[in-house]
Amino acid sequence: MMTRTVGFRDTQIELAHGAGGKASRRLIEGLFMPYLQNELLAPLADAAYCDVNGTRLALTADSFVVKPLSFPGGSIGELAVNGTVNDLAVSGAKPLALLTTFVLEAGLPSSVLEVQVAALAAAARDAGVLVAGGDTKVVEHGKCDGMYISSAGIGLVDGRSRLSPGAVRPGDKILLSGPIGDHGITILLARGDLDFEADLRSDTRSVWPFVNAMLAACGPDLRWMRDPTRGGVATALNELARDAKLAVMLVDEAVPVSDPVRGACELLGLDPLHIACEGQFLAVVAADAADGALAALHAVPGGGEAACIGEIRAEPARTVLARTRYGSSRVIDVLVGDPLPRIC
Amino acid sequence: MMTRTVGFRDTQIELAHGAGGKASRRLIEGLFMPYLQNELLAPLADAAYCDVNGTRLALTADSFVVKPLSFPGGSIGELAVNGTVNDLAVSGAKPLALLTTFVLEAGLPSSVLEVQVAALAAAARDAGVLVAGGDTKVVEHGKCDGMYISSAGIGLVDGRSRLSPGAVRPGDKILLSGPIGDHGITILLARGDLDFEADLRSDTRSVWPFVNAMLAACGPDLRWMRDPTRGGVATALNELARDAKLAVMLVDEAVPVSDPVRGACELLGLDPLHIACEGQFLAVVAADAADGALAALHAVPGGGEAACIGEIRAEPARTVLARTRYGSSRVIDVLVGDPLPRIC
Repeated sequence: MMTRTVGFRDTQIELAHGAGGKASRRLIEGLFMPYLQNELLAPLADAAYCDVNGTRLALTADSFVVKPLSFPGGSIGELAVNGTVNDLAVSGAKPLALLTTFVLEAGLPSSVLEVQVAALAAAARDAGVLVAGGDTKVVEHGKCDGMYISSAGIGLVDGRSRLSPGAVRPGDKILLSGPIGDHGITILLARGDLDFEADLRSDTRSVWPFVNAMLAACGPDLRWMRDPTRGGVATALNELARDAKLAVMLVDEAVPVSDPVRGACELLGLDPLHIACEGQFLAVVAADAADGALAALHAVPGGGEAACIGEIRAEPARTVLARTRYGSSRVIDVLVGDPLPRIC
Repeated sequence: MMTRTVGFRDTQIELAHGAGGKASRRLIEGLFMPYLQNELLAPLADAAYCDVNGTRLALTADSFVVKPLSFPGGSIGELAVNGTVNDLAVSGAKPLALLTTFVLEAGLPSSVLEVQVAALAAAARDAGVLVAGGDTKVVEHGKCDGMYISSAGIGLVDGRSRLSPGAVRPGDKILLSGPIGDHGITILLARGDLDFEADLRSDTRSVWPFVNAMLAACGPDLRWMRDPTRGGVATALNELARDAKLAVMLVDEAVPVSDPVRGACELLGLDPLHIACEGQFLAVVAADAADGALAALHAVPGGGEAACIGEIRAEPARTVLARTRYGSSRVIDVLVGDPLPRIC
């Protein structure tokens, strides 16, 4: 059946292939897509749209392998809900139901599992979604790292906007819901590999209340959204620039970054724009709608730090730039390699 | 929020908790359900039903950890499609779309992954479903066994019948689509642990064409279906007997079992009724409709060995019995322990 040559040349799978950056893209486009290409999957977005009897559904799935299983501000059980719920939300869909599957390692204390099931259930309640089903498999001791969770989500597409990179126009504003990098750096610190302490918590939460407020405030002036998880803001905006064939111009100083995240990034030589968030999202809105959108975000509890961080330009197409505090511009590339494996 | 005491007393997770038998039931009902109970999840069936804008959807998810990754007649990629498709089919839903997530072990040869992606794509084509999305995560070498796949499925509930254990009546006939145990014994032999060779292949396939033919032939006279995977026919029918509060009376000699499966089971002291199938299903139909249903199954390619294997009785309620070839009856219990871990 297959005649197309697979374009993936790496001979084996490495951690970087799961990091959400350049290597992940190569794996998905070079190995998965030649076999699986179809009209639903083609856009490679956070969720696929599927029409069933005239109802437009959003479908998405993620697996979670975060280490450690619990960390300040969250846990794998909460990520398994919020990660999937947020992929639906930024696709403009109200999250309805989740399906969760567990792979458990033989020997896992039942109490460790119970903590995560309870966390997952509480997060689902908070997010207003029902866990409709799931499955549990057990593998031998040493063939898993405690537990992995996979979570699929079904959402009902909201009719107030039709989101697409193709709807983005030069002059549109780029909004960010809050400070970046809290999740990634929290995981790094929780592993104890770093001789550095900070009062930092994962930002994991459902972003649907914020998205809902933006949809009410902007309607069709809301053009595009994405949650900057693996690969961070830099990777998400590079995908936008590429798909929209436009330029993204950020203002470095406008991007909200907490002091502990900035400090850890300076210490490690990382750019906060590459560090994962689990409870933030990026939105592109028409320039006229930006003030109203920001006011709507600020009015939702937890949205006080939302900010306009830049704008869309026509040139240089397919490029993300940031204006530094010294007035110069730097090119923001996608994540290369995997400085922080297994953060979600 | 939680006041209910969790009823799960095992202090750690063991392989048997993933085997689909008594221990699995204890884990699901004792640990997961106290936290996750809701109206969609309550029936604990193969799929949950969810009404969205007047359209009745079936939702299901499974994870796959089979070892080895490829075996005669199938592979983890094919199981990830057919296992999920079949949970939808036996729930009376036409499979529409799948979401698949991969957890990959660093160091996995890309060619091994490619074989499974190709197998998954081919199985999806054969089953008439679209892969709408997915996700890939990579964990360190030694933290996974090559790859695990999780697969969620969305189906459109067929209006020709409303399946439920509550619809089953004494006198109804029990049909089986073909010989049992081929998948489980194939996996066992493929591991090479057994000094035994046989010409046996996994039966993995989509059962939707058979279900569709039964729905056309029987309409509302089709009362209940289940695919006997982990835990086998014995576990599936015990769940029916318990949920319908009725008795199941099988005829041992009527159950189709191939010679290699019977031979391996005798050698190992296993009952074929406990061995998993991946391409068969059980159906309960009204007595008057049984001949028509069997004729419909026989008319679908691959359905030639479908058989009536017993009937529903009022007493002894909540019990599965089998009439032996010697005229006596034996009690058929659910699977206890896990004689064959990681078969799917």
